[in-house]
Amino acid sequence: MLDYSFKLDFQVRDYECDMQGIVNNSVYQNYLEHTRHEFLKTIGIDFAEVTRRKIHLVVIRSELDYKYPLRSGDSFWVGLNLQQVSRIRFAFLQDLYRYPDNRLILNARIIGTAMNEKGRPKLPPEIEKALGRRSKNTNIV
Amino acid sequence: MLDYSFKLDFQVRDYECDMQGIVNNSVYQNYLEHTRHEFLKTIGIDFAEVTRRKIHLVVIRSELDYKYPLRSGDSFWVGLNLQQVSRIRFAFLQDLYRYPDNRLILNARIIGTAMNEKGRPKLPPEIEKALGRRSKNTNIV
Amino acid sequence: MLDYSFKLDFQVRDYECDMQGIVNNSVYQNYLEHTRHEFLKTIGIDFAEVTRRKIHLVVIRSELDYKYPLRSGDSFWVGLNLQQVSRIRFAFLQDLYRYPDNRLILNARIIGTAMNEKGRPKLPPEIEKALGRRSKNTNIV
Amino acid sequence: MLDYSFKLDFQVRDYECDMQGIVNNSVYQNYLEHTRHEFLKTIGIDFAEVTRRKIHLVVIRSELDYKYPLRSGDSFWVGLNLQQVSRIRFAFLQDLYRYPDNRLILNARIIGTAMNEKGRPKLPPEIEKALGRRSKNTNIV
Repeated sequence: MLDYSFKLDFQVRDYECDMQGIVNNSVYQNYLEHTRHEFLKTIGIDFAEVTRRKIHLVVIRSELDYKYPLRSGDSFWVGLNLQQVSRIRFAFLQDLYRYPDNRLILNARIIGTAMNEKGRPKLPPEIEKALGRRSKNTNIV
Repeated sequence: MLDYSFKLDFQVRDYECDMQGIVNNSVYQNYLEHTRHEFLKTIGIDFAEVTRRKIHLVVIRSELDYKYPLRSGDSFWVGLNLQQVSRIRFAFLQDLYRYPDNRLILNARIIGTAMNEKGRPKLPPEIEKALGRRSKNTNIV
Repeated sequence: MLDYSFKLDFQVRDYECDMQGIVNNSVYQNYLEHTRHEFLKTIGIDFAEVTRRKIHLVVIRSELDYKYPLRSGDSFWVGLNLQQVSRIRFAFLQDLYRYPDNRLILNARIIGTAMNEKGRPKLPPEIEKALGRRSKNTNIV
Repeated sequence: MLDYSFKLDFQVRDYECDMQGIVNNSVYQNYLEHTRHEFLKTIGIDFAEVTRRKIHLVVIRSELDYKYPLRSGDSFWVGLNLQQVSRIRFAFLQDLYRYPDNRLILNARIIGTAMNEKGRPKLPPEIEKALGRRSKNTNIV
């Protein structure tokens, strides 16, 4: 198991289960999004607030590997790491483990970017900082 | 505020908000269902397990009064009381309050019954007991 | 069966079914909302557009009577009538019937109002008109 | 644009849009699942019915490339092709295009398998046939 820079606990809710008696595939995207938004708060980004400022944080690619299903009654946690992909793209590596045995349930890699009102890619400074990058406006001689 | 026999804490997740920036009406039913199922566990009923036993706990009527909207970032709690409605019907009185000011968000009354495999109404003994009723099989001289 | 001023066809989607193998209670609110929004278009109201204009159409009470469950593979229709409740409140009477036997699935009464940016109740003129009311600004001698 | 062996039409429903005013990422998985299940019916597989027979069709990997957002009022279609990946894995190539301009909204590749009651991979014969494979029980000299 990796070290994660952020972890969040969850519990399966019965309305998330489908006729197979397992959590429906689409619901994992909900878990992952909620984890990302909670992580973003820890680096100073409130998703609702940046949305009102017309900065659009958007997902451009999702890769999800479903390893084992979650069922009613399961509790679990999501671990997250943020990674730089390119100058304007970043990836959330997100893995989901069941409690209490830490069985791996899902691996995900969610690639995102941010766009301003004109649709131009522009990362918020908080994400730049979390990615450990120097601001492009900083010149160090 | 009433006394409640069961309380559960929640936090709004951003995917639950719609284009008005508030929690979508239908999502409250999810919150209420999850609260009911967690309450049922405290009286010995596991919804998934009784479903596998072909006992169907079903909602037959929902009344929801939306008092004030929940938004991104809000946390809240749901209080629940179970009440007898008729021999085979029971009601969950469920109220939702925002943290930390306890502002009333929603009042709900959810009427349910239980049916066996043949579609006949039949309450599980755990619900009979929680309703404080004598079992019909008990004869006291 | 009533006459309805608006009807909309649907088909159950499997992700809408829960572990009981039937459409989850909360999903009916989705069906009903989509029907209302499609009806509103026929009287000249685009929900997304009025939301951008800061007019908030809100549901203040929902009453739903669940008569019979929908299952995977079912198709159905929702009938809708709009009714005046008070000067600033209106009700959508919405009934859901299964195809092809027109078995009644759900009766609903959804009470709504509209608020302007300041939170003051204010019905859009299109709804006033659909309710068959004279505008309060019209003086006829 | 590719030729697709199956196409399905959709319309965005307002409850599917989030606070950014666009269809939430997780909802695309719902669209894709519904399209797959409708396609499966055309090759003789009813998802609910095989589930009752304890054959579990499961998704093991999803790759989704979000090209452009859908909004309230948009209608769109999903095109699908089924492809063999390995002896026991198959892929649904699913692309989503907006009406009427056929703007590409999403590319997806959903890899699935089927398992019997014991958790052993076992493709239903209908999928084998749709993949154009000879049954492994057929010996041609």
